[in-house]
Formats: sequence, structure tokens, C-alpha cells
Amino acid sequence: MTASSTTTPARAVILAAGRGTRMKSAHPKAMQRLGNQPLVAHLLAAAQQVFDSITVIVGPEMAALEEAVQPHATTTQHERRGTGHAAAQAAPRFGAPPGQAVGDVMVLCADNPLMTAATMERALQARRQPGVSLVLVTMRPNVPGRYGRVILNKAGLVERIVEHADATAGERALTLCNAGSVCANGDDLARWLGALTPANAQGELYLTDVVAQAAQEGHVVHLEISEDEAMGINDRAQLAMAEAALQKRLRAAAMAGGATLVAPETVFLSADTQLGPDSVVEPNVFFGPGVVVEGGATIRAFSHLEGCTVGEGSVVGPYARLRPGTKCAPQSHVGNFVELKNTHLGQGSKANHLSYLGDADIGPGTNIGAGTVTCNYDGFGKHRTVIGQGAFVGSDSILVAPVRVGDGALVGAGSVITEDVPDEALALGRARQANRPGRAPLLRRRLAARAAQGKAPKSDKGSTKD
Amino acid sequence: MTASSTTTPARAVILAAGRGTRMKSAHPKAMQRLGNQPLVAHLLAAAQQVFDSITVIVGPEMAALEEAVQPHATTTQHERRGTGHAAAQAAPRFGAPPGQAVGDVMVLCADNPLMTAATMERALQARRQPGVSLVLVTMRPNVPGRYGRVILNKAGLVERIVEHADATAGERALTLCNAGSVCANGDDLARWLGALTPANAQGELYLTDVVAQAAQEGHVVHLEISEDEAMGINDRAQLAMAEAALQKRLRAAAMAGGATLVAPETVFLSADTQLGPDSVVEPNVFFGPGVVVEGGATIRAFSHLEGCTVGEGSVVGPYARLRPGTKCAPQSHVGNFVELKNTHLGQGSKANHLSYLGDADIGPGTNIGAGTVTCNYDGFGKHRTVIGQGAFVGSDSILVAPVRVGDGALVGAGSVITEDVPDEALALGRARQANRPGRAPLLRRRLAARAAQGKAPKSDKGSTKD
Amino acid sequence: MTASSTTTPARAVILAAGRGTRMKSAHPKAMQRLGNQPLVAHLLAAAQQVFDSITVIVGPEMAALEEAVQPHATTTQHERRGTGHAAAQAAPRFGAPPGQAVGDVMVLCADNPLMTAATMERALQARRQPGVSLVLVTMRPNVPGRYGRVILNKAGLVERIVEHADATAGERALTLCNAGSVCANGDDLARWLGALTPANAQGELYLTDVVAQAAQEGHVVHLEISEDEAMGINDRAQLAMAEAALQKRLRAAAMAGGATLVAPETVFLSADTQLGPDSVVEPNVFFGPGVVVEGGATIRAFSHLEGCTVGEGSVVGPYARLRPGTKCAPQSHVGNFVELKNTHLGQGSKANHLSYLGDADIGPGTNIGAGTVTCNYDGFGKHRTVIGQGAFVGSDSILVAPVRVGDGALVGAGSVITEDVPDEALALGRARQANRPGRAPLLRRRLAARAAQGKAPKSDKGSTKD
Repeated sequence: MTASSTTTPARAVILAAGRGTRMKSAHPKAMQRLGNQPLVAHLLAAAQQVFDSITVIVGPEMAALEEAVQPHATTTQHERRGTGHAAAQAAPRFGAPPGQAVGDVMVLCADNPLMTAATMERALQARRQPGVSLVLVTMRPNVPGRYGRVILNKAGLVERIVEHADATAGERALTLCNAGSVCANGDDLARWLGALTPANAQGELYLTDVVAQAAQEGHVVHLEISEDEAMGINDRAQLAMAEAALQKRLRAAAMAGGATLVAPETVFLSADTQLGPDSVVEPNVFFGPGVVVEGGATIRAFSHLEGCTVGEGSVVGPYARLRPGTKCAPQSHVGNFVELKNTHLGQGSKANHLSYLGDADIGPGTNIGAGTVTCNYDGFGKHRTVIGQGAFVGSDSILVAPVRVGDGALVGAGSVITEDVPDEALALGRARQANRPGRAPLLRRRLAARAAQGKAPKSDKGSTKD
Repeated sequence: MTASSTTTPARAVILAAGRGTRMKSAHPKAMQRLGNQPLVAHLLAAAQQVFDSITVIVGPEMAALEEAVQPHATTTQHERRGTGHAAAQAAPRFGAPPGQAVGDVMVLCADNPLMTAATMERALQARRQPGVSLVLVTMRPNVPGRYGRVILNKAGLVERIVEHADATAGERALTLCNAGSVCANGDDLARWLGALTPANAQGELYLTDVVAQAAQEGHVVHLEISEDEAMGINDRAQLAMAEAALQKRLRAAAMAGGATLVAPETVFLSADTQLGPDSVVEPNVFFGPGVVVEGGATIRAFSHLEGCTVGEGSVVGPYARLRPGTKCAPQSHVGNFVELKNTHLGQGSKANHLSYLGDADIGPGTNIGAGTVTCNYDGFGKHRTVIGQGAFVGSDSILVAPVRVGDGALVGAGSVITEDVPDEALALGRARQANRPGRAPLLRRRLAARAAQGKAPKSDKGSTKD
Repeated sequence: MTASSTTTPARAVILAAGRGTRMKSAHPKAMQRLGNQPLVAHLLAAAQQVFDSITVIVGPEMAALEEAVQPHATTTQHERRGTGHAAAQAAPRFGAPPGQAVGDVMVLCADNPLMTAATMERALQARRQPGVSLVLVTMRPNVPGRYGRVILNKAGLVERIVEHADATAGERALTLCNAGSVCANGDDLARWLGALTPANAQGELYLTDVVAQAAQEGHVVHLEISEDEAMGINDRAQLAMAEAALQKRLRAAAMAGGATLVAPETVFLSADTQLGPDSVVEPNVFFGPGVVVEGGATIRAFSHLEGCTVGEGSVVGPYARLRPGTKCAPQSHVGNFVELKNTHLGQGSKANHLSYLGDADIGPGTNIGAGTVTCNYDGFGKHRTVIGQGAFVGSDSILVAPVRVGDGALVGAGSVITEDVPDEALALGRARQANRPGRAPLLRRRLAARAAQGKAPKSDKGSTKD
């Protein structure tokens, strides 16, 4: 065992080479999505807070995974020879960096994505206590099932791990289980990994076999974490359980910060969702990445937000969709069946019904009528729509970008606006109404007669059914 | 102890002065929202069924709360000196009303909002049994935690309450806990409150200290309620738990009344939601206050209803939003992405797609096409749209209120209707179509060329992307 | 007891005559809906896999039920004389079919809809073991409550069933309960049913009384199933619990097949929903009957699908509604607030915002702008809209069917298209824009003045508010 100090470098090795066959997926297990991110991103985010460097062990042909873990180093495990073999791929990096002492190494598993930075920090500190050769992360699951059992000696130190298949009835009755992570000095760990043999049922090199080696050279202490934190992911049902555990964490944190979640179990958050004090989130709201909701804002039921900011005291939804690049200024209103994409909505402005506002800049105090659409795409490029302050856009207006509607301008309902509207101007772009008295019965008779013949006449009217 | 009879007046005192700092809110705790109402409203609704008068103890600067509890009396607790001090603020009102005997007083806590009228009634009756000086409401929570423990004597009567901080290990092992409410004769309670001292760790006057006093003058009996009913609210996580408990109650009552909730855990009800027999509510439906759904009506998934009536056999949703003042007559249909506000939809009429109908009166047997919008607002006032019976409004029509579409009238698709349409007339307000053969490739080439130059040409076409 | 062989015919009798008064419904209990089907359909679907013929016992005036169980035989129980009496109605059919041996009969209850085909098969096989006179289906519920208790003899064989009302305290302490189904030889069962007497508290003929008779003539073995599978439905709360149990089964099967359900508890499936490998279903999605989602497709939050196919790699939603007859080709996109009914969307085509596309055929590589509506109904008949490949339909276009937009055609935003558009043509059908400089303040002043007078002026503009 090597001496260590608090300035010793600390390295994490993340085992992410598994294909995850029980997922029945074309993607590696570490790329399955959890909380709107690849699985591996969660462990990386925690590990970055604790370790000086991180190496990710990937399998062959996992280019997308290698890219996802950038800028961290990756090493490919070309053969599938077990967890010990996977960890050994990183051993060449376990030695002392130039001018530094040999550091500590913690081995983490990408399919235990909920392990916290606090646990990693505690493991590192425990490893640095006098006499400690290895720290083993453990748990006491409700149903120990087929997990490896941890055998303690009389001093309460870990002696070894016995796999479920090899365990006696007495050993299976033990409730302390291996959670899959270890932390040890880099030189020690490299040596122990090098001494592993495949003398077991599966003919593989088991990472867990380093525990018995470490126990012969020093104290192996264990660090017990909750079953939720230790949760392992092997199939999609477990992936869903991990998502549920992650969401529970995120919801509790949001409420502790002063947000009201009326029905927290129906609100889906991303790890970076920010909800200000006295913000209210009604049932059934989905937050993708990058959302900031300021204090006192209300997100009504059935809303869907991604990459946007909702200002103080604003009201969004129900059924509002805010997409990346959207910024709603304070006291603004976005109503039902309204989509905003890469759009700025000014202070106190309103877009309350059935509208698509994409690539638009809308000033303060402006009212956008129902059914308004910004045509931001001409089939080749995208263009912006600019609407001034205190403007009034009548219902069912079409704004063909690039176009500008001036301050205080009025757009008549049902207009197609293709040219700029000056400040304080009234713009109209629609046909005049013509009533044809008594024509309805005639038309109805004609349509009915032709429908009876099975023919479809041309018709001046036209609606929708079913 | 004073004699009492069933005609003795009964008064409730609701302690609502707490700021609820763990809520991290600008609003007092009693004003946090539960079941679409302020927290305090739930206890008030139950207490009104049982007590002759109610006094609410509020904190300083809680004008919104004082208004919310109208017409009930409020008394302000200016200093924060504990629950006993809070209750004592109401003591001047505990005496006999003119010409009546001294009544009973029950002290309730606004942050236990789920206590039922049945419990209050039982407490009052228990108090009036011979020899009973005080009734204490208790519970046996799954995790007794830091609740005060109730000490019983050998006769099973309450001796005193010991706060968790002061309890011995043996006392902490007890599972019967104080739920925070007491009921006693007004004169007695006033006397005991007057005798409280702040001789405790927090230096406050504890309401719970009246229990020991009462035990010396008579029998203190306890009334055990469920943990759900006794639920206390100190932070937003507990607020969410109370909401869940309340919703569970409301859902069970709705199903017992003959409504099918396909997935009750996804349906959010208000306390006053009425669902008729054989009505069906699909998953993910939100009911705000004031909704009546008549028998045999179906509310499909993802719908949002507030302040509206849905007639017999009607079908609403999916994705329908019915807002206050809306009345859908029997056998009417409201379809997806349709919003009705303060609108009457006639018997058998249909508005099935992507429409906003605000401040409208629609007769029976009328069909409203997709994308129809009533322009009810001109920037200054709101106006009504009237549509007769047996009318046909073509898709994407805009009806600029005030306007009337007559019985049996037809409105051509895409029309802007600004003038009344007589009965049986055909109205059109749209431009004629013009085809320009072979022009599409030219326009595409022009747009592509300019896009390549990074310029945005004016374009006759215009669509939306992403 | 009659000899039996594996070629013996097997018949199921489903007891479905109950009105289900605790449902408070106008419909018989077997017609209540579970998993988007009548209750009885689930048991029928399982029984069809196992039995040669099925007889359903219905009550009087249950025509809708008789129709729903077609083509299976029905027999009406005219009097309500108990479960034994109900089963006896089918006894005339228990004998040997022409040229065959007497078969086995299994009695099932329509209000135990979750019993699986595997259980039925096991019961049939158990019945055919030597010496077995009857197979009784049992369960061990968490709360045995008022279920009938099963009394075993020392050999572990069933002796009799004691109803809760008649049970001693000792018998009530037993945890093995009757789940309501039996399987026996047809002749035996007919004989035992004929010997039943109403000598009990309710004065009815109990099916359970055949168990004691069978025990005197042979071995009565029991087959224990899970509480979920044995779930009985007597009120709407239990109906909701059965729905939850069914959904749990369906979700687990979908995930085992390689679909990611981000939040499975918020996804509602039908029994026939097919989700391909690596398909992703976001929270809050509803699948009605007849949906196929191919591999790698994503169904985003708040979507609602019925009777449709979503091709490989397509993205649907959020807030997309796909209705029966819809087929989205691979790599197509359907966005928010878009409804497709009986519509084919071509490969790589997009309809991303606020559209209604009904009875339409859309070619590959076509872009449909926001707010597009196909007018498929003229008040009398429905007509199709055909759009070619590589076309571009500008926003807020109205396509009055029957109509064809050609390959490579462009439709200008805001057009009403009533005539066919040739291939590669540009079509416009809208008014020109006119700006009236400085007119906005004048109009505002006029509107404000009249609003102040309480009159509603006619206005050129028109929007929506609230």
C-alpha cells in the first residue's frame, strides 16, 4: 500500500464498454437516455466535481459514445473478458503524472448512473485514511437477489466478495451487497488487476477479485449507499426506474428551492431546470434541457419547455410549447396551443391562442391574435419577423418573413403581411366579404344531389369533419 | 369544568398566523394553494359545517389572507410567541354570547388542512360527554419522528404531551402523537391559556401545555385520526403530499358516484367537480373549479376544464380547453386543440379542430370548421359572436365580433366575416385562386440563389420550419 | 369422475350476467371498459387461445353484451339465483359433442378479466391428471378480507370453501382464498350443479358448493395465481385498479421488447400496441387501439395515437394526434397541435405546426406549413386532398377537397385552394396587402371612444383576448 495525501491526484475510470444486450438496442448501454442525457453523462457530471482526470473504457465501434464523453480520454476494450479486464485497460494511466505522486483511482460503472459526487468524495477521503488499502461501495437492497454478497471479518472490515452463484445458503442470507465500485491507490490497483485469473464459472477476470487481494495488504473499508443511488441498469425497465429515481431527486430539490409543484409526480425535469421562488408548476409539465423559470411565474398544465427563459410573473400554458432560443419577458402571457421557437416576447405582451411564432422579436405591450403564424422559412433559408411595441396583430394574420410590423401598428384580422408595416399604420391584406342571400339552400341541394350520385362537386364552402 | 349541552354554541379558532419560512415564499403559509384554493379554505369549508362562528388568527401584514377568510372574523397576532399565544388572541371571544351559555371552542391549525367536518363533529360530541374537560386530536404516524408524544394514564386518558426534544427514550418509543387540535369549554380554555408560561426551550407559550392543566380538572380524552387527515404542511414537498391525499379523496368519491376514471392517478379534480353517472374521464385530464359533467359525457385525454358545463352524451377532447362561462349542450362535440371561453355550444353542434371560440353563442346542429377564430377583442372592448342553428362555418373562417351568422347560413372556407350574414345566405370573403404554371422552379432558383448569397429575398411563398 | 384424455374437448363458460349495481351504471358490468375494450373481451381473448368453444352467460336485456361477444354462444340467465344457477344455464352444452368424448368445462367470471391463457391451460392440464375431479383457482391476497377461505385437508387437497360470513375466527385466519374459477369434467359439473341447494344466508345457489361435492368423488387440487391476475371488479375504483394492473403488464412487455418508455407510468397502451426496438416514448402519451410504431421512431410527450402506423425513424409530437387510417412513412415528422386523420404522409415529409390533415395523400419530401387545413367535408360528403412529392404548402393554406396539388408545386401562404394546382406551378389565392399610414391612432381613438360609450363599433381589426 502506498502512502497518500490530500494533494494526491485522483483519477476516475468509468466502465462503459457494455453493449447492454438486454436493452435490445442498436446503441451501447452508456448511450441510453436518462434525464434527457446519455446515461454516461450523469456519472461524468458527478465525477468531474471530484476527480482530476477521467478515463472512459468503451467497447469497439462506439464512436458516438467516444464523442459524447469528450474531452475525457477513452480507451477501447477490444475483447469482452470481464470487468477486471475492462478496468485493466486503463492501468497504463494509473501511475504518477510528471512531477506528482501516484494517485488514487476510483472505478465507476456507467450503468450505475445515479452515484453522487458526495459518495465519490467520501470514498476518496476514506481511502486516504491510515491503513486503508481499498474502499468498496456497498448497499443493502430490499431484495438482495443475485447481487454479490460482501463478507466482513470480525473487525467489520471487508474480507472478500462472494458472487451469488458461488455463495452458500448462509452467505446468501447476508444483506450487504457489492455496489460495483472500488477506490484504491493506482499502483496497487494496477498490480491487483494484473494478478487476476479467469478461474471462475464465467471464465472472466472479475474486478471484484481485487477486494480479497487488497484485504491481504491492508484494511478494506466499505461505504454503504442507498439502493436508489446504487441502482444498476441492465434493461429498459431498470432504465425507467432510474429515471423515476432521478426525477424524484430533481423534484424534491425544486420544491426545497421554493417552487410549488402541484403534482410533482407528473412533472418531468431536466438536471439543469431552474425554478424560481413562488413559481408554480401545474400538473403534467415537461421540462427539456436549458429552462429557466423566474420567480412568481406560472407554468400551466400540459406545457412543454426546452431551452427557454420565462420571466417573472409570466403565465405560460396550458398547452404552451416553448422551444430553444425563446425568451419571455416578465409579465408576458403565452396561451394554449401556442408554439414559440427562437422568439423573444416583450414585457407584458400576449400570444394566447393557436399561434406559431418562430424566429420573431416582439416588443413590449403587444397583442398577438389567435391563429397568427410567422412564415420563417421559404424552403431555403430562415428569416426573422420583427414586431414593435404596443402593436396589435389581428387574428389569423400571416407574417411572411423577413418582415417588420412597426410600433403601434395594427394588422387587420386575416391579413397576409408580406411588406413592412410602418409605425402607427393600419395594414390590411384580405378580400372583402360578399353575402349572397338565399344561396345556401341552393348550394346545399346541389351538394346533396351530387353526394347521392357518388360524385364530388366543386364547392365554394369547405369544412372539416371528424 | 363547565357544564355543556348540545345547544351550547360552538366556536372554531383557526391558527393561521404562520409565515411558513420553509416554503421560501412571499405569501403566508395559509395562502399556499391546495386543490385550486388557498390552504385555509379547506379547513374553513369543513368548520362551517360544524361551528356557529369561526375566528381566524392571522399574522401582521397578511391583508390577502384576511380577505380570503371573509366573512369570518380575524384577529392579528402581532408578536410571535407560540401557538398558545396565538390561540389566546381569540380568548376575548370565548365567553357566552348575549343570552346564551358559554360555548365550546375548538382550536384548529391552518396547516392541517385535511381535517374533516366529521372529525370536528366527533370532537365536539366527545367534549360534551360527562366529565370530559378537553378533547385532544391524535394520530399514529408511520414514522413518529419529531412529533410530540401523548402520555396516557392507566385509565387510557391523556395525562400530558411531551415534546420530542424533552422526551426520554422510553417516551420517544410511544407511537401516539399530538395532531395539534384541542376542544374545550371556552371559559376553561381561556383560563388555561392565561396560565401558560414560556418556561421551555423555545421560550414560547405552547398550546399543548393546556392539556396537562385540563387533565388535572377532568378527563382528557383523545380522538385518533388517520395520518392522511392529520397531515401537517411545512414545506412544498408536504404541500404536494397533501394535494395527493386530497386528490385521492376526490377521485374515490367521483368513482363511487358512477364516473369512470380510466387512470384516476392522472386526473386532477377540484373539490366542487361534478361527474355524472357513466361519464368517462380518460387519462390526463385537469378540472379547475366549477365544472359540471353530465351523465354519459366523455372527457377525452389531455383536456383542461374550468368553470363550465358539459351536457349529457357530449364528447370533449382530446386536447380541448373549456374555460369559464362555457356551456356545451347535450350531444355536442368539442375536438382537439379547441378553446371555448364564455361560449355556448348548441345541442349536437361540433367544433372539432384547432379553433378559438370566445364570447360566442352557437345554435344547435351547427358545424364549425377547423381553424375558426372569433375575434372578440378590438384592443378596447369585447364583443359577442352569434351563430344560428344549422349553420355551416367553413374552415379557417374569421368572425370579427360583434357579428351574427344566421340560421342555415354557409360561410365559405377562409373568409373574414365582418358583416352579419343573413339566414340561409352564403358568405364569402376571400381572394380567387390564381395558378402560375411553371413558376415554382423559377421561384425556387431565385430563393436558393439569394439564400446562397446570405440575403433574404422577398418571397411570395412562406412557410414554417422547425 | 369421468376419464379424460388430452384430446378431450374443452369448453369455457363465462359468467357475465351481473349488472354490477355498485358501478352505478346503465351498462352491464361486463361491458365496462378496460384497456379500451369491454371487460369481457379480455377474458374472451385469453379463453380463445385455450378452449374449443365458449359460452357466455348473460342477463336479460343485455343486447349490447350479446353482440360484443359474437361469434360466441350466449345463454340468458333470466332469474338472479346465484353463481351456481348462472353456470347451470350452460349445462345442456356440457355433454359430448357428436362423435367426441365428454369434455372439460372451465367456469370463468367476466369480472376477473385479467386471468391469463397460461392459467387456463394449466388448469386444464391439472384437471387431466389422474384422480383429479376438480381444479380450483385460488389466491393469497394481501388483505384476505371478505373472500371465501379455502379449507385444505392434510394431503394438501381442497376440502371445501367456506364463505367469509360463515367462517369461524380460525378459518378467517387462513390466507388461501377462492378466486372464483373451477374446472371439471362436463358430466360431473352438470351433476354437481344440479344438486346445489339454496340452503344458505342469501338463499342462492353457490358455484363454490360444487367444490365439496367434487372433493367427495376425487381429488380437488388448487392452482394459485397472483392477486393481480385474480383481481375482481365490483366498482369503478376496482376497475381503475385493474386498468393499472393491465397497463403495468403492457408497459413491461413493451420495454422487454426494446422500446424506451421514459416514464412508463404515464404511458397508456392498448393490448395491441406495437412498439419497435429503439423506439422512444416520452412521458404522457396515449395509445388507442391499432397502433404500430416502427423501430427508432420517437413519440414525443402529450401525443395521442389511434389506429395508425408510424414509420422507422419518424418523430411525432409533442401534442400530435394521429387518428385511424393514418400512415406516416419513415423519417416523416408530425409536430405540435397537428391532427392527421385517414391520411398518408410521405417519406421525409413534414407537418410540424397547428394543422388538420384529413383524408389526404401527401407524397415524399413535402413540407406542409403551419396552420394548413384540408377541408374534407362539404356538409354532405367527404373528399380527399392529394399533394404530390417535393411540394411546398405555405402556412395557413386551405385546401378545399377534392383537390390536387402537383409534384413540386408551391402554394403561397394564406391561400384558399379550390382548384387543382399543376406540377411545378405556383398557386396563390389571397388579397394584396395595403398599408394605410397613420391610420392606427385614428382607429384606436374611435374604438376607445365608442367603448367608453358602451357601444361596439365595427372595426377593421379584430383579435382575441383571454
